[in-house]
Formats: sequence, structure tokens, C-alpha cells
Amino acid sequence: MKALVYQGPGKKALEDRPMPEISAATDAIVRVTRTTICGTDLHILKGDVPTCAPGRILGHEGVGVVEKVGAGVSTFKPGDHVIVSCISACGKCEYCRKGMYSHCTTGGWILGNSIDGTQAEYVRIPHAETSLYHIPEGADEEALVMLSDILPTGFECGVLNGKVEPGSTVAIVGAGPIGTAALLTAQFYSPAQIIMIDLDDNRLAAARTFGATQTINSADGKAAATVMALTGGRGVDTAIEAVGIPATFLLCEDIVAPGGTIANVGVHGVKVDLHLERLWSHNITITTRLVDTVTTPMLLKTVQSKKIDPTKLITHRFKLANILDAYETFGKAASTHALKVIIEA
Amino acid sequence: MKALVYQGPGKKALEDRPMPEISAATDAIVRVTRTTICGTDLHILKGDVPTCAPGRILGHEGVGVVEKVGAGVSTFKPGDHVIVSCISACGKCEYCRKGMYSHCTTGGWILGNSIDGTQAEYVRIPHAETSLYHIPEGADEEALVMLSDILPTGFECGVLNGKVEPGSTVAIVGAGPIGTAALLTAQFYSPAQIIMIDLDDNRLAAARTFGATQTINSADGKAAATVMALTGGRGVDTAIEAVGIPATFLLCEDIVAPGGTIANVGVHGVKVDLHLERLWSHNITITTRLVDTVTTPMLLKTVQSKKIDPTKLITHRFKLANILDAYETFGKAASTHALKVIIEA
Repeated sequence: MKALVYQGPGKKALEDRPMPEISAATDAIVRVTRTTICGTDLHILKGDVPTCAPGRILGHEGVGVVEKVGAGVSTFKPGDHVIVSCISACGKCEYCRKGMYSHCTTGGWILGNSIDGTQAEYVRIPHAETSLYHIPEGADEEALVMLSDILPTGFECGVLNGKVEPGSTVAIVGAGPIGTAALLTAQFYSPAQIIMIDLDDNRLAAARTFGATQTINSADGKAAATVMALTGGRGVDTAIEAVGIPATFLLCEDIVAPGGTIANVGVHGVKVDLHLERLWSHNITITTRLVDTVTTPMLLKTVQSKKIDPTKLITHRFKLANILDAYETFGKAASTHALKVIIEA
Repeated sequence: MKALVYQGPGKKALEDRPMPEISAATDAIVRVTRTTICGTDLHILKGDVPTCAPGRILGHEGVGVVEKVGAGVSTFKPGDHVIVSCISACGKCEYCRKGMYSHCTTGGWILGNSIDGTQAEYVRIPHAETSLYHIPEGADEEALVMLSDILPTGFECGVLNGKVEPGSTVAIVGAGPIGTAALLTAQFYSPAQIIMIDLDDNRLAAARTFGATQTINSADGKAAATVMALTGGRGVDTAIEAVGIPATFLLCEDIVAPGGTIANVGVHGVKVDLHLERLWSHNITITTRLVDTVTTPMLLKTVQSKKIDPTKLITHRFKLANILDAYETFGKAASTHALKVIIEA
């Protein structure tokens, strides 16, 4: 089968690989019909993710059709149409029983990381019964690719951890795919203001069409002052960090109101300064989270009932044979205006 | 009247001062029968608290008897026996209505800071109806001095923010008065382990008698490794920071388990390093809080019903005339073994 393989920092190739096989009774083999590329895949390609060794098939998002199941799998059968979760969860360990699937002791984010992933014709899914979701008949497959990772990540790590609530004031720092997923799902809770902050005017223009009440281009270094002016000098109840660098986290520290929350979503490569000398008395909360995907069934209902349209995130489409072009387009988002790219079998 | 007055960095004196007067209809004048000294008073004396100007009467803790009330005060009358809260709260502003009294727009921590405080024979209490608490007949006055600040601080900022729960694992970094208040109040929730960490063996010995299940002297630099060994390699569900320096906050970052909480209580003078490069995916929460004193009535019930004995915190007693000796004793806790000192009128 064809598969996109990480070959070490800076290198990748579309290779011919053997079909995956069932290796545990709880496995399923899924024929991937649609997948996508995540910012995390670009991190791997930079060599930033040591758990991902050269030779690995990348990808942790996708939808498809069950091809085979192990002897222990009873809730899925060949032919079932499924969403693949980016998080594999045994459902049995202490963390899984608390709903913290991201820290499953034999799972978590392993797909396209420590085991082969979804950017291929077929993928082996461990812990299939608690890592796949049935797709309702007639559903839009493209929309549901967004349920593998990006929507639950923006929602769980940003909106839920950030405690967005009716009438509240939200700032989202970073208008990329994850920030946009947070923007879409924050609207479930009817906040009064959603202020979107980015360096890219195209992304900010898109954010306005997706529901941002105000947008700020932070290139002039005055974003914090602008947020304070937009919030009556108070700051925001929820600051969602969706970039992953010190400057954007510091901006969140500068704009969070007393009693507010900084919900970190970004993947950080270096430490940040936490200004406890002024924040110790501000009654704030800071949260971090690797997505647990506990909300995937709930998000599926919001998509099916049209409370949210995740196809807004999709800007480009490619065939698997042209996945290198897809990487090229996704990697140069500033010029291509890419958010999420769909890759079809 | 006699009053302990801050005279600028490094300087204080017991002075003769005029009696305070009612200046607003919502004021009360309280004759202070017992007060105490807080670590924050020592911060002021170092010149670390710019809101506190020379000439200020210090002190934000105490119990006493109402002497006079303003025309707008109906729930207190002269002769009433009261606890003075360290936080003055109007009860009417947006923050007060959310229970965030610490950020009251005309109150908060002002006593012994931006207005004259309790280390005196008399004190003016603004917003009296929402900043004083009635003392039940026959109650132990010394125990209730601990309800002005230290018990609600350890409880709200440490135990409640830290989400201590039955069977959970707690580490408290800092076995001073605030850490000890957290230790006493954490036991309301029956955690499985409370690990107390400090540099002072005397304080750790006291902590064991107050309910710590394990104690660690962190002088050898191996406290994090010891905590991991005591928790099966997992770390703690709740890490309470009760010192206020970078090293102790970093220790909390090192020992918090996935899904756990770092509850900051310490007053910090400088920024700290937040290691998001490893914590971004750990599903942790960090909280900061200036005490709101919303739990004072509840804590009063726990003292009255003997669920907790805050007199354990009291190590020394002085007369107001000898308050300079009390400062000397409290300021040299390593040699005097002082936790809280009581100062009687």
C-alpha cells in the first residue's frame, strides 16, 4: 500500500509499504478514505518529536471503513464506517477510567508517532472499541475528519478548560486551524465577545466570517493594550493560547482578567516566563491539556444537528498520490491560506 | 491609642495615634482585643509592598469588640464580639457579587496596607457589614484570630483551588503558618497522603503532629525524587506552593501528576520559569488566588464543632505594648520556632 513515511528530520516520502496486520485481539484494520495533515506532523518533520522514529507512517486523523477486526472486537465489524480518534485509549487503565484518555498507559497519542498512522491506504487501530467512532449514515465524511483531532482539541483544551460561558469575554491567540476550531466551538456557549488575535490578516478575515466579534493583528506589539481597550480595561475571562511560543503565552498573561483562565492549547518547545510577581494575587487559572477526545461523540451530534460546520476549516483537497503537494500547501499557509487540507484515498 | 506604625523600609515603631473615626455610613470602629503578625507584614517592612506608605498602621488580622458603627450599619452594634476579615468587601460590586471579595473595587486587601490596620487598640473597618463576622458566645478568641486570614488563605488558595479530595495525594511545599493552615484544612477532605516539604526539621516535626503523613527536608535537593518514590512514580494530585520563591514553584512543577493541580498560595516577588515544553501535554491546572474569605463562616463552624483546632498554630503570646518583641520573635522563626504569635490588647 501507499504510505507517507517520515525519514528523519526534514525528510519524508510516499513509499510502498506492506498492509498492516491484526496484532492484538483488540485491534482493527481500517481502510482510510480521507485523512489530513496536522501542525504536529510538521513538528515531527522538523525533528521536534523524539518519540517518532524514522520509518514511521505519519498521520493521526482520518475516517474510513473497517476492513478486519481482532477476536476481541464486538462493537465494530468489517464494512463499518468510522472516525479514527487521534488518541488511542484502552478504556481500562486508571487514566482512561477518569476520562483522561490522553494519558492511557498503553495508548494516548501513539498513532503516527510511536506506531504507524493514517496517512496511508490502511491503518492498524489498537484498542479499536474505545478509539473508533461509528459514523451515522449519510454523514459528510469530510466534516468528520475534523473530529479526529482538531475539533476536540480546540474544544476540550481551549473552550472547556477555558470555562467559556454565556456573556463571557474570550480572546483566542492564534487563528490557525486549532484556534479556528476553538472559535467555532466557543460559540456553543454564547460568549459576549470572541477576540481573535493573529499576525495574518487573511486568517483574521476568515475568523470574522466564522464568528469572531473583533480581530487584532498583533504585528504592532499593541495587542494587549487593544484587548484591554475592548474589554473596558478589565481583560478577558478566557485567553486561549493556540500557537505554542513564549510571546503568545505572555500575551495571554497580559490580557487575562482577575478570576479568568488561560487555557493553553499550543505545543511548546521551550519554557515560558510566568509572571507570578503580579499574577499571584489575580485569582487566575492556567490549564494545559493534551486532548482526551472524550467529547468526540458530543461533537459528532453538534455536526449532525448543524450547530457547527467544520467544513469551514477545509481549504484544499488532494489525492493520497499527491500528498507531498498537500504538505507543501499546508506548510506554506501564509501564502496558500491553507487551514486544513483533505487527502482522499 | 497605641499602634504599630510602618516608617519606611526596615523601620517600624509603637506610636501614639489618634483614635480612628467613622468616616462613612458603612464603617465600624472595632476595639482590637487580639491581633497577630503575618508574613505579609514582614514583606511590607522589607519595602516589597509599594501600596503601603510610611505612616501606615500595620495588621490585617484580629478579633475585637464593636465600639461604634456608622448610620448604615444594622447587622452589628456596639458591644458585638467580631472577627475582622483581612479582606474588606463592599458586597455590591461585580467582583463581590461573584464571591471574589479579594478584588472588590473599593476594598480587597486594604487593611494595614492602603488604610490603617489592626495592630493597634482600635481600627476602622470599612464595609463593616460584609467585612466583619459575629463571634458565637463562649468561643475561643485566640482560635478565631486565625480566621482573619491564615485559615481561609490556606483553605481557599491551597485546598479548594487545589481540589483536594478523598483518597488523593497532596504535597504542601512550605511548612510555615500558611502551609500549616493548608495542612489542617486539607484533612476536611480525607486525602490519602499529605506530604509536607520544608527546610526546617522543627516545622516538619510539628507538621507530623498536625496530620502530615510524610515529611521531606528538601535541603538535599532530592525532594522531587522522594515525592515520586512516595507516589509510585506518579506524582501528586495537588501541589500546594506556600513559600513564594521560584525554587519552590519549580518543585511543584516537578511533582504534579498528569491531571493534577498546582495551587499557588505564596506571595512571589519575581517571575518563575513555567516548563510548558513538558507540561503542555500533562493536563495540569495552575491556580493563583488572593484569599476571598468567602469561607470564613464555614471555617468558623469547623472550629466551633472542633473539626479543626487552629490554636495549634499559636506558638507565642505578647501584649500590644511588647509588639516589637513579637515582631522579633516572628521574624526569627528558624530559631524561635514561631508559627503564629498572638498579640493581646
